[in-house]
Amino acid sequence: MQLDLLILAPLGSILALGFAAYLAIKIFKKSEGTDDMVRIADAVREGARAYLKRQYMGVAIFFAIMFVVLMGLSFMGHLPIFVPFAFLTGGFFSGLSGYIGMTMATNSSARTTNAAKSTLNAALNVAFSSGAVMGLVVVGLGLLDLSVWYYFLNWYYTTHPLPHGMDKLGAVTSTMLCFGMGASSQALFARVGGGIFTKAADVGADLVGKIEAGIPEDDPRNPAVIADNVGDNVGDVAGMGADLYESYVGSIVATSALGVAAFGRLGLSLQSVTIPMTMAAVGVLSSIIGTFFVKTKEKAEQAALLAALRRGVFSSSILVAILSFFIIKFNLGMQYIGVYWSVLAGLIAGVVIGLSTEFFTSSTYKPTQGVAHQSLTGPATVIIGGIAVGMMSTSVPVIVVAIAIMASYYLAGGAASPDMGLYGVAISAVGMLSTLGITLATDAYGPVADNAGGNAEMTHQPKEVRQRTDALDALGNTTAATGKGFAIGSAALTALALIAAYRDQIHILGGQINLSLMNPKVLIGLFVGGMLPFLFCAMTMRAVGRAAGGIVVEVRRQFKEIAGLMEGRAKPDYARCVKIVTAAAQREMVLPALMAIIAPILLGILAGVDSVTGMLTGAVVSGFVLAIMMANAGGTWDNAKKFVEDGNYGGKGSAAHKAAVVGDTVGDPFKDTSGPSLNILIKLMSMVSIVFASFIMANALMK
Amino acid sequence: MQLDLLILAPLGSILALGFAAYLAIKIFKKSEGTDDMVRIADAVREGARAYLKRQYMGVAIFFAIMFVVLMGLSFMGHLPIFVPFAFLTGGFFSGLSGYIGMTMATNSSARTTNAAKSTLNAALNVAFSSGAVMGLVVVGLGLLDLSVWYYFLNWYYTTHPLPHGMDKLGAVTSTMLCFGMGASSQALFARVGGGIFTKAADVGADLVGKIEAGIPEDDPRNPAVIADNVGDNVGDVAGMGADLYESYVGSIVATSALGVAAFGRLGLSLQSVTIPMTMAAVGVLSSIIGTFFVKTKEKAEQAALLAALRRGVFSSSILVAILSFFIIKFNLGMQYIGVYWSVLAGLIAGVVIGLSTEFFTSSTYKPTQGVAHQSLTGPATVIIGGIAVGMMSTSVPVIVVAIAIMASYYLAGGAASPDMGLYGVAISAVGMLSTLGITLATDAYGPVADNAGGNAEMTHQPKEVRQRTDALDALGNTTAATGKGFAIGSAALTALALIAAYRDQIHILGGQINLSLMNPKVLIGLFVGGMLPFLFCAMTMRAVGRAAGGIVVEVRRQFKEIAGLMEGRAKPDYARCVKIVTAAAQREMVLPALMAIIAPILLGILAGVDSVTGMLTGAVVSGFVLAIMMANAGGTWDNAKKFVEDGNYGGKGSAAHKAAVVGDTVGDPFKDTSGPSLNILIKLMSMVSIVFASFIMANALMK
Repeated sequence: MQLDLLILAPLGSILALGFAAYLAIKIFKKSEGTDDMVRIADAVREGARAYLKRQYMGVAIFFAIMFVVLMGLSFMGHLPIFVPFAFLTGGFFSGLSGYIGMTMATNSSARTTNAAKSTLNAALNVAFSSGAVMGLVVVGLGLLDLSVWYYFLNWYYTTHPLPHGMDKLGAVTSTMLCFGMGASSQALFARVGGGIFTKAADVGADLVGKIEAGIPEDDPRNPAVIADNVGDNVGDVAGMGADLYESYVGSIVATSALGVAAFGRLGLSLQSVTIPMTMAAVGVLSSIIGTFFVKTKEKAEQAALLAALRRGVFSSSILVAILSFFIIKFNLGMQYIGVYWSVLAGLIAGVVIGLSTEFFTSSTYKPTQGVAHQSLTGPATVIIGGIAVGMMSTSVPVIVVAIAIMASYYLAGGAASPDMGLYGVAISAVGMLSTLGITLATDAYGPVADNAGGNAEMTHQPKEVRQRTDALDALGNTTAATGKGFAIGSAALTALALIAAYRDQIHILGGQINLSLMNPKVLIGLFVGGMLPFLFCAMTMRAVGRAAGGIVVEVRRQFKEIAGLMEGRAKPDYARCVKIVTAAAQREMVLPALMAIIAPILLGILAGVDSVTGMLTGAVVSGFVLAIMMANAGGTWDNAKKFVEDGNYGGKGSAAHKAAVVGDTVGDPFKDTSGPSLNILIKLMSMVSIVFASFIMANALMK
Repeated sequence: MQLDLLILAPLGSILALGFAAYLAIKIFKKSEGTDDMVRIADAVREGARAYLKRQYMGVAIFFAIMFVVLMGLSFMGHLPIFVPFAFLTGGFFSGLSGYIGMTMATNSSARTTNAAKSTLNAALNVAFSSGAVMGLVVVGLGLLDLSVWYYFLNWYYTTHPLPHGMDKLGAVTSTMLCFGMGASSQALFARVGGGIFTKAADVGADLVGKIEAGIPEDDPRNPAVIADNVGDNVGDVAGMGADLYESYVGSIVATSALGVAAFGRLGLSLQSVTIPMTMAAVGVLSSIIGTFFVKTKEKAEQAALLAALRRGVFSSSILVAILSFFIIKFNLGMQYIGVYWSVLAGLIAGVVIGLSTEFFTSSTYKPTQGVAHQSLTGPATVIIGGIAVGMMSTSVPVIVVAIAIMASYYLAGGAASPDMGLYGVAISAVGMLSTLGITLATDAYGPVADNAGGNAEMTHQPKEVRQRTDALDALGNTTAATGKGFAIGSAALTALALIAAYRDQIHILGGQINLSLMNPKVLIGLFVGGMLPFLFCAMTMRAVGRAAGGIVVEVRRQFKEIAGLMEGRAKPDYARCVKIVTAAAQREMVLPALMAIIAPILLGILAGVDSVTGMLTGAVVSGFVLAIMMANAGGTWDNAKKFVEDGNYGGKGSAAHKAAVVGDTVGDPFKDTSGPSLNILIKLMSMVSIVFASFIMANALMK
């Protein structure tokens, strides 16, 4: 009976990938516009492809080394034999999601500009469709990877002997849990590398171009302008795709693993594993239906555009909410219908976090307007104000997540069975992410609109075209902030599920674990874990600074050495700038990524598994709060600057504007490099702990 | 036998207060210099006294209300009858410490300037003696309060019936534990109110004076200049005195309470209570001896001055390390000598944290020089660089504290008896704070030197006088950073001890507590607790911004309306500025303080005591990390600015200097308002939880 429903997972995958292909073909049929426009688009495409090629080569070396390490662990008996291969596929599909998303984005920006020549709705359609391709590819590939492994492992453990002390589904889910590590590693490299690239190029281009040479943003004379546009694609698109692929798959495998522990004794483990995968499949259908609600009129206000996107997301959410009820009722019966309320808690929490992010970062509300006002007294007060808004904005998501945890734990029956409660927490994250197909679309469309604006500027399009692309771009800032809130909220819940899965793993391996707050090992784990996100942010922010420094030197050199560049008679060497930031980003992403992998192993060997659990929890708590603070402070500064540019407090060129630009520049690495990487960091550390659990237990100096 | 040793506590108190009086009389005998100098000193004295009077009136209302609340709880049977009175004395002595310290400081600055007319050593002597008075008053009053209550309660419970289910020392220590709440409340008001005052005056004075009117710092024509000088005294001196009084007393009472739980079964509870109090007494003696090592030559380099102060601190530390051994051996015997190693772990951790703070914030090292270098590319890179340094600097103190926790827990015998381990953690904080008499002296001398410089500037002293006061002032920045590291490190350890005491309290009250990390109530507590320090910082930083805004308006008004002010023919209305910031600080300190008191009670009623424990732990972890980050980022920016002013990267007046000033201004509320208040916040929340434990248990909606 249940297998009938599980078939929805591969079907959902095919549906997602098929509809994505249909949308992609529709986009490719449209014209990219004039030769000028194609030339710019080509340059960005080339740069982005060159970057990703280089990035994937570097990551491939890392994956090769880790594969050998994992094979070694496997031969020593610390890991099931399929884990190293699952690790590879997780990394591969995560990378592929980013690559396809980026290919779509770089092929859609000029087409968006060209469509903007006719109507706003036509432009929205191209940009949003491009985002939808990415969203659907992410969920489609995720479901594909999950389905193939599930069916394969299920067959294998039916026909082969089971590992010691495990039942069939336990063996299946504990292998699948480990493949999240491949996706997480790939995602961390993509987010950190891409984040460093995009902000180094942006800051570097601005520092010399805008401030020293006094030429406007996106001016074709600036040698770093293509690198800047490439950055939007490799950081915000490819990085985000890999990131959310990981979130999506991670939440599903963590829930499945907890399901076996929670419902095994009731003979319902197959059902509990089926639920998250079928919910994801239902989410695909809902997302596709939701995309049809996204359309707008000409002369749309900002609010109307936002409403168009919201219509899409909300209708998908409502559909998922309805269909999930039947999935859970069908699988677990009305006796355990509480699990459904956990799903709803997650869905609602995601929406509330999104609204709160909007309140704190949009210039239609007081907090951002207050920061804009502080630009009158100079950059220092802008900075203090923005950090204060960022810090204050952590309160709502934390309280919402706290309520979601309590609700999903107890509604799923945690009072009677703690394992069921933890399953409830895990599945609330699945609920939050089930509409990823469309939420990611609203998020990924932003960089396309941004690049479309850049293309329009560089090819000197008429004013109304610019106005249309600007309208789409401004909206992108809001949806990006909302998307980040979603990614962080779901990451906190998924990370908690992974920590619970880690504890289960220790028990399965025959270990003991004392998780009391009064255990000094747990306490020092909490302290170290609480500190790591700060250290990680410090590393990534300094990396942006160093990489930007390289661009500054190169742009200055080109301005000086290329005769006739400033007069527009000669062309700058765009490719060299792209190459420099690419090399810098690759170099700089190594250390933070290594920290994430080494920290849990090192602490585990020094102080044992109790400490590791403390560390993971400390990192989730402080990483969650810090990530929100940084993302929202960055969003606030960005929109406060735009608010001033719209003519408030003196408008463009005033002292207030200069002060607001300082805030925006500080916010760049906050919101696009360090902040969004944190949610991967906390999950990757959990994954590493799980994969290395047996090794750590065997080699820990303190047991 | 043991009572013989305990007599050291009142004797130590008398010794500390007596030596403080001797130093104070010596200072008062010196001349304040010319009429001009006296006039300035008088204005600062008056302003400071007016501020404290107003502050204490506001706080008195709070104490009156809380007294009634606590009496109510006491009549309802939720608290021993003496707690409300102990609450009052804790608050009173904490406030008195601040008041006396501030009186000394405001009476010593002009005398320091005057002494600087002869030699550097003479000036150092006055400033340092003033700091020493404060340090000794804090420890003297602390020991007095502790001794009186200890002897009284001991007598009372010998002659009166004991509370249900408690032995005598249990009853004594659990009442004494509660009086920490009075000290903490007073300290929080002093730190937050004073911190808002000092930075609002500073930022306000700079924004209009330096930036708009273009007059130098400490220029007598600036109407906010006296408020700025007053601020150094009410924030950095009175606030710090109250703060460290609370740390000192808090660590001792928490250790005593844990001692009864740990050593009660062994018949050694009296001894375990005696140890922290006698160690404190021994610390008094060591501190006094240490003060004699602080002297310098004329023409001393910065390094020589620092060495002079270090000599004092190190010799005290070594003395305490030696004497503590005998105290512990005498009380517990060689069988439990492990407790001594816990003390040493705390002492060493304190020193290492201090050195790490120096490394990250002093301009003789790379991190601060790097931030100074980034001033070449403008304010945005200075801000990013400073935040990155602040974040990176959290790693060393966290690891040091983690090692100290592990060492003090296991060396004190935690493997066999967890209660003994927690006693070890608690006493390591006592070890760290035992030399408070002298460490506070090196810290409190800074504002005196700062004001002495201000006095010299305003009274147009000759160049060599300014050079001497500047040398002392620059050193003060380093010792202030070190002192903050100490305060934060000890706060983390003390807060952990308080959390353990809270758990014991719940057990004594017959409650149950589940502290597993997998308990959802603990988890949401961790999240909420992790967020509260961020919210608290947001509130206090915004308060500084609002209060500074008031000063900006007033200074602009005076510049406009008072004829001849800019030409030096008319005097500004200093008192009005003081009054405005005073009122603003009083208004603004209410909300953050209320948050600290209400949060644990509210969460306790909504989600029970498990959640409260999680919240306290989350707040300690994130508060500790955030406090270090903010204090060190602020210190780095301050010294990076000074480094530029010393002639690097273009020196004073260059674009780089302007960028560095932005960093310094952002750092002001970081390091002097929000950061240092966090360590009180985490302890006050623990104290409130303990005092309201019984009430919460009776009224919790979720048990």
